Formats: sequence, C-alpha cells, structure tokens
Amino acid sequence: MSPPRGPLAQLRRGHEQLVLGLLRKHGPLSRGELGKRCGLSRTTLYDILASLVASGTVVAAGQQDAPRGRGRPAETLTLNPDAGQAIGIDFARRGLHVAAVNVAHEVVGAVSEPHDAGLPWEQRVELAERLVGALTGTGSGALRLGALDAIGVGVVGPVTGPDASEAGDDAPAANGAAPHPVQLLLRERFGVPVLLDNNTRLAALGEAIWGAAAGEQDVLYLRLSHGVGGGLVIGGSLHRGTQGLSGEFGHITVEPGGARCECGGTGCLETVASIRAVLDAYRAAGGRAGDVPQLAEAARAGDASVLTLLEDVGTKIGAVLAAVCNTIGPGVIVIGGELTETGDALMRPIERALHEHVMPVSRHLLSLRRATLGEVAGALGGIALVLHESPLLSRYPAGPDLAKDPTMTPSRHP
Amino acid sequence: MSPPRGPLAQLRRGHEQLVLGLLRKHGPLSRGELGKRCGLSRTTLYDILASLVASGTVVAAGQQDAPRGRGRPAETLTLNPDAGQAIGIDFARRGLHVAAVNVAHEVVGAVSEPHDAGLPWEQRVELAERLVGALTGTGSGALRLGALDAIGVGVVGPVTGPDASEAGDDAPAANGAAPHPVQLLLRERFGVPVLLDNNTRLAALGEAIWGAAAGEQDVLYLRLSHGVGGGLVIGGSLHRGTQGLSGEFGHITVEPGGARCECGGTGCLETVASIRAVLDAYRAAGGRAGDVPQLAEAARAGDASVLTLLEDVGTKIGAVLAAVCNTIGPGVIVIGGELTETGDALMRPIERALHEHVMPVSRHLLSLRRATLGEVAGALGGIALVLHESPLLSRYPAGPDLAKDPTMTPSRHP
Repeated sequence: MSPPRGPLAQLRRGHEQLVLGLLRKHGPLSRGELGKRCGLSRTTLYDILASLVASGTVVAAGQQDAPRGRGRPAETLTLNPDAGQAIGIDFARRGLHVAAVNVAHEVVGAVSEPHDAGLPWEQRVELAERLVGALTGTGSGALRLGALDAIGVGVVGPVTGPDASEAGDDAPAANGAAPHPVQLLLRERFGVPVLLDNNTRLAALGEAIWGAAAGEQDVLYLRLSHGVGGGLVIGGSLHRGTQGLSGEFGHITVEPGGARCECGGTGCLETVASIRAVLDAYRAAGGRAGDVPQLAEAARAGDASVLTLLEDVGTKIGAVLAAVCNTIGPGVIVIGGELTETGDALMRPIERALHEHVMPVSRHLLSLRRATLGEVAGALGGIALVLHESPLLSRYPAGPDLAKDPTMTPSRHP
Repeated sequence: MSPPRGPLAQLRRGHEQLVLGLLRKHGPLSRGELGKRCGLSRTTLYDILASLVASGTVVAAGQQDAPRGRGRPAETLTLNPDAGQAIGIDFARRGLHVAAVNVAHEVVGAVSEPHDAGLPWEQRVELAERLVGALTGTGSGALRLGALDAIGVGVVGPVTGPDASEAGDDAPAANGAAPHPVQLLLRERFGVPVLLDNNTRLAALGEAIWGAAAGEQDVLYLRLSHGVGGGLVIGGSLHRGTQGLSGEFGHITVEPGGARCECGGTGCLETVASIRAVLDAYRAAGGRAGDVPQLAEAARAGDASVLTLLEDVGTKIGAVLAAVCNTIGPGVIVIGGELTETGDALMRPIERALHEHVMPVSRHLLSLRRATLGEVAGALGGIALVLHESPLLSRYPAGPDLAKDPTMTPSRHP
C-alpha cells in the first residue's frame, strides 16, 4: 500500500495541503468558493476534492442557498473532525504510548500500554497497530486514517535527526545512516513517511508545544525516570547536536570518582538521580520503599530519611541545571519523569540549588515547572515532529496555534 | 546622510543585491548579459548600474567584441574589489578591533588599537572612525564605502539579539529594548544599519566561519581572557538564549563555596581561570610573572609550579566543557583568549578532563582546537553577523563559501 512517489505526488500533496489549509482557516466552503481561493484549475480541484472525500478527510457540511434563479443550492465541504492527520508513537523501554491529531490539528486521543523491556520490535509494532486501532476503530469518535500524513516515532537512544529518519524515500539518508527497523516496519504497515527521534527529546518538544512550556521558544527539559535524560528546544525547534548526542544531562559528572554509570563514565547525575539510584539509596539508609509511589508517600508523610535523601539529590540536580542554564539561557525548565511524583520534597531543593548556582542576573528570568503531559509526552512530541518537520508541512505555523488545544484528554489503555 | 527607508528602498536594495550576486557568481558581464539574467526592466537595471558605478561598487572591466556588424563593442562591468561591503567592529573592554570585507566577501583587512578600559563611547567611536579610515584611506588597496550594507558590532555584556540591535529603523526594537549608544553614534556617522551582539559570542561566530572551526555547524567557543566567557554556534547560527544570557561558561560553579565572583556568585570558573585568577594563584605559589607572556615563558621553561597550576585550572575547564558537551553535543570546541598562549601546558589537562567527563560515546566525536583568529575574532564575527543576519543578505549562502578566503591578513595598527 505504498503511496505514489516523486515530484508529481509531492505536487498533489501540496495541492491537498492548500485545500485543507483553506478549510482549516475558513471553515465550511463550497466548491466554488474553494476554487476562487485556491487558484487551482477546476479539474485539478474537483479531482483533489473527490479523493479527499473518498478518504474521509473532507465531508459534506450542508448547503448554501444558490444566488437567485441560479439552479440548485451549492453543497459546502468541511474537514472531517474524525480524520486523523498524524500519529505519534513512543516506543519507550517498558511501554508503548500512542497519540493522534485530526486534520484540524486537535489531539483526538492518547493511549498507553506497558510491556516487558525485552519485547522484540515486531511485537512492539503489532502492539502499536493495536493501539492505533483503538484510536481509529469503528464507532462514534473513531479516527479514520485516510488523511494520514506521517507518523512521528520516539525511540530510546541517540538519533541523529530528521535527515536520517525520514523513511519516505528508498534512498539512504543524507548522512548515510540506515533506517531504524521500526521505521521500515511502520512504513510497511501504514504506507506513510516515518519520522524518528529520541523519545526523551520528543517529550521535550511535546512539553514545549502542548505542555508545561506551551508556546515557549527556549526550553530545557529534564526527565527523572529509570534513566536520567532530557532535551533542548532552541528557538522553537528541537536541538539534536552532532550525532544526536544532546540533552544528555544524566551523564554530567556530579560526583568525581563516584559510582560507575551505564554510559561507561563515573559519578554521572544518573548514578544518583535515577529511580533505581534513589530507591537504592533510600533502602541503604534503612527506608522501605519498593517503588516511586511508596517513596512519594514516605516523603508526604515527612519521613526524615527520604527528605534528606531528596534534598541531596535535588541539590545535585539543581547544580547541573544551573550549569546548563548558564550555557544555553533557556526561559523555562521543565522537570518530568516518575520521580517528580515526590513533589516539593524534590522540587524545592532543585530550585534552591538552581538559584544558588545560576548567574545571579539570570535568576529572575528562569521559570522552573513540573511537566504536565505525563507518559504520553513523547508520543505527542512525535506528532509535533510531524507537524513541524514533514517537508509537506514545514510551512505550517508552529507553536501557539498548536498549543491552544483544550481537548487533549490522555487516557490509559486498556 | 541617512539612506532612504521603507519598502521601495528595500526593493531597490534587493535589486542591487541581485545584480551584485550575478557579478559575484559569473564575473564580468555586459549590461545586456546582466539584463538577460536579472529579469529587471532595462530602465531599472540601467538606473541601478549607474548608482553602483557612481558609488564605486561596480567598475568597468573591459570590452566584449560586439556581434558582427552590430556597432561598438559592449562594455563589461565587474565588482570593484576595493569597495567595502561590511565592517565589523569589536568594542572590547580595553581595545578596539576593526575588520572589513569587500563586495566579493573577501576580508580586505583588520586593525586593532588598545585603549583604557574607561574610555567614553564618543571617543571609542572616534577611534573606530579613525581605524575604519585606515582601512578605507586613499592609496592603493584602499577600501571605498560606497557599497556598505551594514556594520556588525560587538560589545561587552548581554545582548538580546538582532531584534534589539538593528538600528536601521527609528521604531523601538520588537522586544522593546532601547538601541545601544554605540548603535546610534555609528549609524549617525555611517548611515547604515548597525547590528549588535555580545563580542565574545561574535568571536565564536567568527571562529565558526573564518577560523578554527570554519564550516562547522555546531561549535562551542570558550575564551580565557580577563573574563571567562564563550559562545555557541548551533546549526550554523549564533545561539543567543533568553535575554542574551547564553554561553556564560565562566559562571558555571567549579568550586562550591569558593571565591566570590564579579557576577555575584561564588566559585565560578572565572574565579579560577581568568588571567588575573591564574596570575594571582601563580604568585601566591611563589612564582614571578607580571603577565601572560611571562607565565607562558615559565610554562615553556618547565617551571613545576606553573605546570601544576595550569594542570589544576585545565582540569576544571575540561570538566565544565564536558558538562556543556553533554548538554549540546557540539562537534568542535574552540579555546581562545590570551591564556591559550601557555600552549599544551593548559590544553593537555583541558583535553584530559574533557575526555574523562564527557559521555564515553561522545569522546571520539569531539575535536578540541585552539582559536586561530586572535584578537580580531570578534570584529570578523561582526562581519559574519551582517552577512548572515541583515534582512538584505539573509539568503546569502552561509559558511564554507565565506571560509575559503585565503587573503585574510590581520595586522596591528598603528
């Protein structure tokens, strides 16, 4: 089910985008009104409208009264709010998250499902199909994929960027990188380009567009989870860095000569601020907590041992954030990941150390916030990647327009 | 001598750029050939050529044989290699640096002159005029300013970016910032837009375009001088950060609870790695060096005390660079400033600590280099700012084309 390729297909897609853009902007329009506004020939326009209607992207909205004595009333056309335009999928280490937007760029739903860390790619993609099916199944509120432009995908580990990731072409990427297996599998299934990036970076983009830092141009995102990572949005765009190795805040040294880290270094922030590191330290101090919710409960109950521990961890995190802020000067810092469930017990020492170590002149310019998108941040970031970076959509206005959506209601599945 | 304003002036400048671009690309062309290639009406083209010739930007290059029996030979026109297109001025704390490029974007000269730190702006601008005059004086090799597009200026301290800095308009900048006094003074004198940025950031841009990192897209620049600062080039563009506070590597904490810094913080990198900090520490250890050349001489002579000191300072610098590299993933790190005159005694410990603390997977991707542009880096960065960011020039290809210039021969003045 591969779509047509080449310049003509691109041109046709461009015309489709033009028509969709007019309907997005003006609401329901008749064929005649569309013809006046789009500048396409009648034949081309009618041909495009026929295929948009056939795919369910555009539907009849009603009828306009015809000018006096000029025959039958004109039918008006409108965007189908149930037609999906982009899907975001976060292939996280231990779970899958899927979100979708319709042709009006409203988030129509998000679902998640946990799985074992070792699940093979084929089975992850099967699971992804099933979750997309849950968003696009039959029944009211179901999403049709006729207008699907692209899929934005987050994966664990370094990704060099969109050059390497757009599998819409059979040619190797410009930088010579081979497509990720998940790109090939998804493209085979959905027949559209698959854009790829690191899932933590996508969460940063998600938070900067739809979440805690909606509409901000310069955002630092730190995720405190099983790993400690992050991402940078600079000038409204995701910053990737050489070879995709940016936002690796978890591997900044905080304890010279400290514990060995998975990255091969020692004393990295991740060795003191990951979920396991914090739980281990808590247990070593005599505390009893099997997971983050129990740790958070102990913090809320005023357990001195956990408060001291989080004070220490937060202080180290804040010092790293200060160094990063002095480097890039972000306006907003967003902290996400499960460890933020411990609330102020962690956030307050982070803020104190940040303010202590950042250049005094920057202090009042910084805003420290907790992430708001939860576990679907990466999937939403995948959608943002599509809307921002697909060559077909690159001129679509970014940021605030996308951030206004009040309909986003992430839900857990099943 | 204010130039004409508004859309028509912009359009005319656009036409001029079109004609200049054709001459830059194709070499000498006749009026007829220019007409065929530029698509402008004969009246418009001849009008523009007349003013370009009058200003000295374009000169007659010779004659083409006319087609058989078709009257007199056609005169060809070419860029005047002596016409200046952009000037860069670095208003450093204790000296002034000026550089200029001609209409072919070749650096035609650079001059510097030291002055007292407290010199008032009016006198600095007078000095700047004199140095520009030295580049544009009479005699062979002199530069004419007829084609001057803009001046790029570096100053000490935070600058928010080009929005705030383009004084080509009388309206306040988009972000409400008032023009810097030097912008007003220079614009009055030269009658062209004055683009402003922090001079250390401009040095970063200069090194990324003309210097040690020529042609690189992601560059981290650190300057070890009277202050310790830096700049980031990300994706080929200067990164400014919110409120212009990026690249402040000198204010990253390296000794918690350490010495008080000018910024108001304590234990900043600048408190151990500025020229004064290093000289003070050397003297405290019994060494005798009144300035950096003497310190460098002691290092070359194998003075154990200075080697131990530079080892310690370099180790702290390297750790900060590693944190910054984990954050932004640059391909090239450039170290500039007078302290690099101490050579390997400082560069080797920097490299060791950088490699020890950066994510192991990034190590082989990093290239650490000494700056090559010396004290005129900021002035050259000012030119790069003009060529990259002037609205008139924004589509001019960046990077490698500019970096090829072999004619750059900075000279000290007087």
